[in-house]
Amino acid sequence: MNSTVPQDASPAPLDAESEARADAVARGEADEPHSLVVRFGADRPLKLDAGVLLPDLKIAYQTYGELNAARSNAVLLCHALTGDQHAANINPITGKPGWWDTLVGPGKPIDTRRFFVISSNVLGGCMGTTGPSSVNPATGAPYGLAMPVVTIRDMVNAQAMLVDHLGIEKLFCVAGGSMGGMQVLQWAASYPERVFSALPLATGARHSAQNIAFHEVGRQAVMADPDWRGGRYLEEGVMPSRGLAVARMAAHITYMSDQALHRKFGRRLQNRAMPTFGFDADFQVESYLRHQGEAFVQRFDANSYLYVTRAMDYFDLAADYGGVLANAFRGSKTRFCVVSFTSDWLFPTDESRAIVHALNASGASVSFAEIESDKGHDAFLLEEPELFAITQGFLDAAARAVGLPPTKDA
Amino acid sequence: MNSTVPQDASPAPLDAESEARADAVARGEADEPHSLVVRFGADRPLKLDAGVLLPDLKIAYQTYGELNAARSNAVLLCHALTGDQHAANINPITGKPGWWDTLVGPGKPIDTRRFFVISSNVLGGCMGTTGPSSVNPATGAPYGLAMPVVTIRDMVNAQAMLVDHLGIEKLFCVAGGSMGGMQVLQWAASYPERVFSALPLATGARHSAQNIAFHEVGRQAVMADPDWRGGRYLEEGVMPSRGLAVARMAAHITYMSDQALHRKFGRRLQNRAMPTFGFDADFQVESYLRHQGEAFVQRFDANSYLYVTRAMDYFDLAADYGGVLANAFRGSKTRFCVVSFTSDWLFPTDESRAIVHALNASGASVSFAEIESDKGHDAFLLEEPELFAITQGFLDAAARAVGLPPTKDA
Repeated sequence: MNSTVPQDASPAPLDAESEARADAVARGEADEPHSLVVRFGADRPLKLDAGVLLPDLKIAYQTYGELNAARSNAVLLCHALTGDQHAANINPITGKPGWWDTLVGPGKPIDTRRFFVISSNVLGGCMGTTGPSSVNPATGAPYGLAMPVVTIRDMVNAQAMLVDHLGIEKLFCVAGGSMGGMQVLQWAASYPERVFSALPLATGARHSAQNIAFHEVGRQAVMADPDWRGGRYLEEGVMPSRGLAVARMAAHITYMSDQALHRKFGRRLQNRAMPTFGFDADFQVESYLRHQGEAFVQRFDANSYLYVTRAMDYFDLAADYGGVLANAFRGSKTRFCVVSFTSDWLFPTDESRAIVHALNASGASVSFAEIESDKGHDAFLLEEPELFAITQGFLDAAARAVGLPPTKDA
Repeated sequence: MNSTVPQDASPAPLDAESEARADAVARGEADEPHSLVVRFGADRPLKLDAGVLLPDLKIAYQTYGELNAARSNAVLLCHALTGDQHAANINPITGKPGWWDTLVGPGKPIDTRRFFVISSNVLGGCMGTTGPSSVNPATGAPYGLAMPVVTIRDMVNAQAMLVDHLGIEKLFCVAGGSMGGMQVLQWAASYPERVFSALPLATGARHSAQNIAFHEVGRQAVMADPDWRGGRYLEEGVMPSRGLAVARMAAHITYMSDQALHRKFGRRLQNRAMPTFGFDADFQVESYLRHQGEAFVQRFDANSYLYVTRAMDYFDLAADYGGVLANAFRGSKTRFCVVSFTSDWLFPTDESRAIVHALNASGASVSFAEIESDKGHDAFLLEEPELFAITQGFLDAAARAVGLPPTKDA
């Protein structure tokens, strides 16, 4: 920690049998993640939008594929609200495939035989990058609410330090959906010379009133749990699991479409022929939601939930550029591909259109696709052949433009 | 209570200065509401869909206008989830105008100079009609979860007992929105000969998976509050206010449209020039939502919230008629006017269209209007001139058909 030269730590050994997963998330992953880790010394603090310096920044990340000699084939993935660095490997906490296993891997649209793919946990997260469950070097105890509130730009500036550390001057592509898409836009705005191509999916250039409202409900659910203890639950040995589960349930509804919920569950009952006239999970959709809430608290930190939702709420890219979104991209040489999904009501297509209009107004190179899907906001994480084809085509064209061979071996 | 003849109690005196409003709701209004009350004796129990008998049914209600000699001018209003009998008078708890003050009153579309308007608190409610905060005659303590789960049909059957008690054979109109609209449809299905006209607004013939999901989030928020105490909070002298407030906040978002939230609040900050980089209510929409949650717990009982949401979840009118909605209305002579609002995403227009198609298939008389509005689901409670004109026109035509004079004095 005191070294002025960043050092990568080896991944901690993975004990697949661990039953204390919640504890592993709260303490183990935050302190010793199953990932590569880069630590920046106290003399290389991150200057945050909140106006304070964050010392001893730690970033947990994964890489897939190999960086070519020209260092020109790096793709940075930006994860969504509750994602993490485990985009394309088995998640050490859940034991499930990474969140973008659909899109990233050998022979997949983001082809790890061709690209060097970097995926880091965001600032404020709970999987090894500095966040509220990390140890505060000033006290030796977890930050809790002493962690400064971070923004999407802070997340991106931290990622830029990681990219510097990896010796990469220019990223071939920055890609992500939802909150990840916000980071993509912020990368393109903050570091236009370092982003050859950008793939923002299912996102917006600002968080809407309705989206802020849903986040506020989630935060209130967490903070209403007496076991939240003003954010000091780790020190007090408790977990605000019930509040966090309610927050996740509310959020999860917004990630799906009405149609998808109807298709998947309709009004079907859960393992019973008749309603019970009670408050059990009579309906499959209730049982499913409860499961989502329960599973989430096993892998996510409640305070991190407050911080990452807040970062999204604060995101308003135009506001940093005189209220004119096009100014954020003025003179940009980045190639953009903007994608939305018809049934996404959290980030409806209009939000993507606003980005496209701004990019057009700024003279940037942009293609846009609205994909017909009933899967709602989460479509960018799911089997969506049209998304795969668009991503593949966009990256192929960009790779040709930059002179990358079809695969790293070719 | 032991009388076999229903008796109307006088309204309790209203102490407008009362500060213990939450307590008044939890105990005062449930036991001694500021309303007319009819009590049915132990020998006239209500048979519930849950398969049990509910003894000592009490119904709290308000009336406006006068019943004509022919008893042909009665309009029954059915309230929505958290409404009550105070449709068109100052609410004794909140001190605010009744929930349908926009539409009901002298010279208004539901003209109390012309019609005898009845508005009762639903079964399972907390404003004087039997519900979980009422005294369980078997124990002398509040029912809590010992109250049987009730359905929309149970609510309607209770209302039919009230209408009988008032000596009204046939209602000129049954009107309501949202859960009130479900009651309207159930009235038309259960008692076709007793409903001359029906005005279901912003509703559906069944509760969708998404809507069940939102209700489940609300219930989980209530039940996650340690002060809920397994539903026994009244006996234990506490209130699950934080959980109920979170439930209300989540629900309230669904009552508004994305556009209305944007128009009303956008990303504007609350009494501050800059974000605070904290978890205060920086944004106006956060402050507004918190206020909605706090105000709600002053007037509503947490267990009632469980019961009325459950009643909506269970509503599936077609299921009671062999899965064919049209069968619910076969041979009906009732005149229907179905209304939806373009920005209502809780009960989108498709739900109303399904009702209209079923009514058409059953050969019933039906008119349908989709009103252009950005006010979302709650539009039926708000200033909507087109709704007023449609309601007025529909009732005028029905009144002419039934031979009612333009006003009760005419």
